[in-house]
Amino acid sequence: MIHPDRIAAANDTAEGRLSADYEALGAHLDRRGIDIAAIKAKVAGYGVAVPSWGVGTGGTRFARFPGPGEPRDIFDKLEDCGVIHKLTRATPSVSLHIPWDAQPAADLNSKAQEVGLTFDAMNSNTFQDQPDQALSYKFGSLSHTDAATRRQAIDHNIACIELGRQIGSKALTIWIGDGSNFPGQTNFTRQFERYLDATRTVYDALPDDWTLLTEHKIYEPAFYSTVVQDWGTNLLIAQQLGDKAKCLVDLGHHAPTVNIEMIVARLTQFGKLGGFHFNDSKYGDDDLDTGSIDPYRLFLVFNELVEAAHNPDFNPMHMLDQSHNVTDPIESLMVSATEVQRAYAQALLVDRAALAECQEANDALMATTLLKAGFRTDVEPILAMARFEAGGAIDPVAAYRASGYRAAVAAERPAVSGAGGGIV
Amino acid sequence: MIHPDRIAAANDTAEGRLSADYEALGAHLDRRGIDIAAIKAKVAGYGVAVPSWGVGTGGTRFARFPGPGEPRDIFDKLEDCGVIHKLTRATPSVSLHIPWDAQPAADLNSKAQEVGLTFDAMNSNTFQDQPDQALSYKFGSLSHTDAATRRQAIDHNIACIELGRQIGSKALTIWIGDGSNFPGQTNFTRQFERYLDATRTVYDALPDDWTLLTEHKIYEPAFYSTVVQDWGTNLLIAQQLGDKAKCLVDLGHHAPTVNIEMIVARLTQFGKLGGFHFNDSKYGDDDLDTGSIDPYRLFLVFNELVEAAHNPDFNPMHMLDQSHNVTDPIESLMVSATEVQRAYAQALLVDRAALAECQEANDALMATTLLKAGFRTDVEPILAMARFEAGGAIDPVAAYRASGYRAAVAAERPAVSGAGGGIV
Amino acid sequence: MIHPDRIAAANDTAEGRLSADYEALGAHLDRRGIDIAAIKAKVAGYGVAVPSWGVGTGGTRFARFPGPGEPRDIFDKLEDCGVIHKLTRATPSVSLHIPWDAQPAADLNSKAQEVGLTFDAMNSNTFQDQPDQALSYKFGSLSHTDAATRRQAIDHNIACIELGRQIGSKALTIWIGDGSNFPGQTNFTRQFERYLDATRTVYDALPDDWTLLTEHKIYEPAFYSTVVQDWGTNLLIAQQLGDKAKCLVDLGHHAPTVNIEMIVARLTQFGKLGGFHFNDSKYGDDDLDTGSIDPYRLFLVFNELVEAAHNPDFNPMHMLDQSHNVTDPIESLMVSATEVQRAYAQALLVDRAALAECQEANDALMATTLLKAGFRTDVEPILAMARFEAGGAIDPVAAYRASGYRAAVAAERPAVSGAGGGIV
Amino acid sequence: MIHPDRIAAANDTAEGRLSADYEALGAHLDRRGIDIAAIKAKVAGYGVAVPSWGVGTGGTRFARFPGPGEPRDIFDKLEDCGVIHKLTRATPSVSLHIPWDAQPAADLNSKAQEVGLTFDAMNSNTFQDQPDQALSYKFGSLSHTDAATRRQAIDHNIACIELGRQIGSKALTIWIGDGSNFPGQTNFTRQFERYLDATRTVYDALPDDWTLLTEHKIYEPAFYSTVVQDWGTNLLIAQQLGDKAKCLVDLGHHAPTVNIEMIVARLTQFGKLGGFHFNDSKYGDDDLDTGSIDPYRLFLVFNELVEAAHNPDFNPMHMLDQSHNVTDPIESLMVSATEVQRAYAQALLVDRAALAECQEANDALMATTLLKAGFRTDVEPILAMARFEAGGAIDPVAAYRASGYRAAVAAERPAVSGAGGGIV
Repeated sequence: MIHPDRIAAANDTAEGRLSADYEALGAHLDRRGIDIAAIKAKVAGYGVAVPSWGVGTGGTRFARFPGPGEPRDIFDKLEDCGVIHKLTRATPSVSLHIPWDAQPAADLNSKAQEVGLTFDAMNSNTFQDQPDQALSYKFGSLSHTDAATRRQAIDHNIACIELGRQIGSKALTIWIGDGSNFPGQTNFTRQFERYLDATRTVYDALPDDWTLLTEHKIYEPAFYSTVVQDWGTNLLIAQQLGDKAKCLVDLGHHAPTVNIEMIVARLTQFGKLGGFHFNDSKYGDDDLDTGSIDPYRLFLVFNELVEAAHNPDFNPMHMLDQSHNVTDPIESLMVSATEVQRAYAQALLVDRAALAECQEANDALMATTLLKAGFRTDVEPILAMARFEAGGAIDPVAAYRASGYRAAVAAERPAVSGAGGGIV
Repeated sequence: MIHPDRIAAANDTAEGRLSADYEALGAHLDRRGIDIAAIKAKVAGYGVAVPSWGVGTGGTRFARFPGPGEPRDIFDKLEDCGVIHKLTRATPSVSLHIPWDAQPAADLNSKAQEVGLTFDAMNSNTFQDQPDQALSYKFGSLSHTDAATRRQAIDHNIACIELGRQIGSKALTIWIGDGSNFPGQTNFTRQFERYLDATRTVYDALPDDWTLLTEHKIYEPAFYSTVVQDWGTNLLIAQQLGDKAKCLVDLGHHAPTVNIEMIVARLTQFGKLGGFHFNDSKYGDDDLDTGSIDPYRLFLVFNELVEAAHNPDFNPMHMLDQSHNVTDPIESLMVSATEVQRAYAQALLVDRAALAECQEANDALMATTLLKAGFRTDVEPILAMARFEAGGAIDPVAAYRASGYRAAVAAERPAVSGAGGGIV
Repeated sequence: MIHPDRIAAANDTAEGRLSADYEALGAHLDRRGIDIAAIKAKVAGYGVAVPSWGVGTGGTRFARFPGPGEPRDIFDKLEDCGVIHKLTRATPSVSLHIPWDAQPAADLNSKAQEVGLTFDAMNSNTFQDQPDQALSYKFGSLSHTDAATRRQAIDHNIACIELGRQIGSKALTIWIGDGSNFPGQTNFTRQFERYLDATRTVYDALPDDWTLLTEHKIYEPAFYSTVVQDWGTNLLIAQQLGDKAKCLVDLGHHAPTVNIEMIVARLTQFGKLGGFHFNDSKYGDDDLDTGSIDPYRLFLVFNELVEAAHNPDFNPMHMLDQSHNVTDPIESLMVSATEVQRAYAQALLVDRAALAECQEANDALMATTLLKAGFRTDVEPILAMARFEAGGAIDPVAAYRASGYRAAVAAERPAVSGAGGGIV
Repeated sequence: MIHPDRIAAANDTAEGRLSADYEALGAHLDRRGIDIAAIKAKVAGYGVAVPSWGVGTGGTRFARFPGPGEPRDIFDKLEDCGVIHKLTRATPSVSLHIPWDAQPAADLNSKAQEVGLTFDAMNSNTFQDQPDQALSYKFGSLSHTDAATRRQAIDHNIACIELGRQIGSKALTIWIGDGSNFPGQTNFTRQFERYLDATRTVYDALPDDWTLLTEHKIYEPAFYSTVVQDWGTNLLIAQQLGDKAKCLVDLGHHAPTVNIEMIVARLTQFGKLGGFHFNDSKYGDDDLDTGSIDPYRLFLVFNELVEAAHNPDFNPMHMLDQSHNVTDPIESLMVSATEVQRAYAQALLVDRAALAECQEANDALMATTLLKAGFRTDVEPILAMARFEAGGAIDPVAAYRASGYRAAVAAERPAVSGAGGGIV
């Protein structure tokens, strides 16, 4: 782990500049009638979960190019996640993926406590076959034509809940790859009926204070049809299952050009927005770093969240979900956590009373200018000051690079050689 | 109108070839265990509505290039629609658009009877301002921020119902252009609340045996957000309003790559598929002739319809909705009616028992081959024979061209000069 | 026109805040090693052309909803364009569209001088039929199968050049709608051969110091194929015609998800980037205000332009091209000119030496962070100060609204009633 | 291998029906003035290459689900390819992928002769790291910033040529994954310069009678930019390198909605169409079975090829390139070879003289009807008869299933267990 002295040393050189920038921004916001301290307090209270699998190098179906010091298991992963939170103070929890991270609850809890983290939503996996698995998911899992295969998938999800209970998780996220590659391969209706039946059984096993998050995705790994292909189907699922069932929105899982912030608004309006997987995409489910391609879209999503925040029951879960193919995963996750905070801070700056007036008066130009006024404000000093005051790094990437952490773990953890993806 | 003798003369030359083709196809289908006469009977019983506006030349925002003999009013349009049905025997009804076609019910009924047609769904128009209109729809209609404007739109829709009752229509189709062109211009949630409120008032004015069809569209004329942007929102509308409210699917109104046949299946499964606007698209809402770009997609939609047909309550409405920019609209509509029939006939040929078995066994290759076996069968002889036996033309376009109808109406109806579209 | 006193009065109230913001930004940039005055000087020297048609309210194929005070002719349009430049100091030239703006050169020159503007590229129009036109463009213009129609289109383009010479223009922009709506309607190859032949005749009539800009567009008004559908075909045109022929990139004319900044880089690399039509889009050719949907994409385009600026021969033309359907066109154009300047200023802030080092070292995270450091800087004080020092308004929209200009012209210019678009 | 007696036995039961269908189709085509024997002869002369990697089960980044009897090496793969050709008589050659298939030329030649196949284009691989590889392709290969890495990639390509010479190949296909995942990660221009330099070195090593095929792809595995992203860049490459360099078009490598047949026409017109990778896609590079999603699009591509066939120098290479994730790869490849033949046969049926007349007269409706007349003809009897007469199976899938080949090789070849894709 990174020693606090390291962080303090890195902050020493940056503190003067930060103070000047923060003071100037405070004065500027004051001229706009905004109290910088209030914004900073909200930012400081914000956290986004890190996915355990995100600290390993990702890959494509063509190849995976590992980096030095790849985590060997969930304990290494928690170590890496701890570093991210230590430096950013923005990622207090980790989301586990089972069976990849399946370990005794006591060991998980102990390690989490050691690195100062808690556990977010549990993620089940019925889109791959595991070595010891009786029945294959080649043709589906929760929606498989074979009842025994569905049962196997149900049991796995219930096991995830069981482990989750022991480590303080409060949600299960189900994403499946079930679908088809050919017109006619499946009967859309019967397949969805099977899905609903199976998922209801999982739902029934859910503790009262848990949420079931189902995740839609337009395509991949299925390339003609996917059972939970969009928010319409996802909404139907949540409606059919009950109050504890809500929809998870992954920003990269929609058709080209779709207005995602509007989907966020619709699900919010009908009480079915359960959470997010933040990332960014240019083409398909690219799983790029959140805000790296279209930062304004991310802002517009947060604009909806701030808009809805007056409702005390509105409390969707926030998680990063990215594939880090060409960067150090720890660096990408630190920057991404910051980008999510940034969008949040910018959305907080929007003058909502004035916006409502413009909307009522159909003053489109002024309404959009109000959003832009929030978006184009450089809130970096707020984010940095919030980190600094919480003991984190003013510049997390610089502090991380200076710390030598990657080299240190690379010395401990065995090198992994490059490998082809799914196509070979 | 086209005299039956004309049709008979055209058929005379084509009949021999048709008989040979029909007989050969009958023999072939017999080898596949299919009774050609049964298929022909279903095709003969199938009809698709023609939109009154479809017989005029369409245009884009850049220009409209009228052809000779453009219809001057709804009576000319009904005349043209009569020709289409006379030749194809596949388009027994016409869908009116108000106020374009607003005329005394008695006159409409009388003309319809004269040309042998009935009236399909009524279409309201709150996406344009009419010369005598009190309030503008520039910033919306049923979802406008101004209550008086919403009321005006509601009243217009109720007037459409009233006229529809008098001419035997049983459905009102609502498509609105409401949305926004800038992030922030509208509050998604409040806009949708206003839409639901206003539309509920229209719904409440609906006779018991009527259906309210709402139509979703991803974009255009609004270019950042649209109130009823996709089937998810459309489904919410139908759920909120009640049993008489159903969703209309226009094949050109979806995001790129979206699996439309799956949407058809989902709406069917939950009892909310109300009807179709058939057309084809390559890029956006191109309103091209149905089946002209991707005929297999059209077939896959009909595959769902045939799959669902065992349910006696399943009875969605079928309508063409195209913009004919470079063809004689009558020719395009005749060919399009035939293409819809073709997809239906091909879907009827699919061996559904075998398909269900393949699906159950996850035999993807054989399942898709069974669909293709239906699709690649050349059912033209079945369609032609059904037309012929019903008094229509074996080759409608050839008969139409031979008839001189276009030249005749061009002599009667004044020429319309070319004009710019919305951009000038 | 807006009196300078008006502007001065508006600036009086804003100047104090601007000074404070500018000073603070100067201090911040100084801490980053950047001289704010140098950036301001470049911004002050930057201008973007306004399209004459942009000051009228746009429309869609469904409808056009005019606003008060619509310009009646090119002289009204120049008046409006003068206001935009007066307030923003960023739009020194106007691009004409013929025949919409065809007037005696002397009158155009005199009016332009009066309002303080010059003339940018000439735009021809062979995508609409004009009342007095001998042959129709319904089936194409420069690529029409009929030689006389092609000749008519050629002659029109040559007439545009002729008028342009008399008013100081140095470029002709050709955008045509030629294409097809059905597979098979045209022979792709012969159609393109005809296009190249016809365009070569126009090219040959070009003065030596002129540029011919051809513009690609994936679709609309043609919905199956378009002759100049993408930059590949556009490049072939420029290669075939010669050195004076270059490609114009309209940001809204590409397929979904396409990387536009990369096209800019490729055309630049091969000496064929001729100019831009700036606007923004979410779905198709939405012609929304530039930077209103994806401001980072606009920044990335300017990042390429700044990257290429070391080449003294690199001098593409910059023009806005938008459709203002729901805003006051003058306001939209003022904001848009500012947005283009903003992207330019942000791109100027990127540390290019550090960027090149990161690129060489494959430090993807730091490279993209360097771009973001430019993008997220709030350069508004630089833009505002540049305007202010040049006699423009610190807040152009506020000054414009305060001026009462729109009400004044609405009193003079007759009201235009709402009208349907191309579809009726 | 499958014994001819097996095929004969399977054909015995199908021959009667085929004869009847073929005779009926012959009579029908005769009524349309088409000689069925001439079409059959062209179909019989047509062949499409099979990719060696296509006979293994494919996968996605999420998982790969192998089937029984997966080929262990290139010799097993050639065995499987031999079966495909034996049954379909449509796949006379195999395209190798190096290093996956790198084996002594003598062994390859001997095995190919044994199974009755020849070798098509060679495919290099610089998108993965191999165990014994000195330098990583994580950040690129032919366009890498490091000269030694580029040299390694060049040498590998030259080695592919060398092996290809010894086994009778006449082409090298280069597809690389080089690109970037973040704005700013690479300098577009310098990266492309490096690519051109490196590829020129490969080109210079090409024998005189060889073709260099470069393949464009919009995205994946790079998710922000790809060096050879579209046909425009691909064309530039072919232009820069010389006459032996041509463009390869993979049907799944384009942006959504792009008109691929038009790209085929453009590259043909300028002498730069080198070959195809046939497959189908609904969303991204789905690598689905060719013709399984949009068979009309495949037909329209072949329509261009038949249109261009009058040029004796026009001879692009044809290859399948698919990922078979849920089917028996041998079955998918047999069906796909048939689909390609089908599109070719249908395109041959188009009345080109009549089509040219309609195009000249702008008779869009009749022109497209002429294409449809070819497309909707069920040419299966022609394909089946061509296979039958050449010693293949009338119904290849039925014959294959009856043969027990899969079970036989599954008994010989060790089972492969399911595995995650690139993401774990």
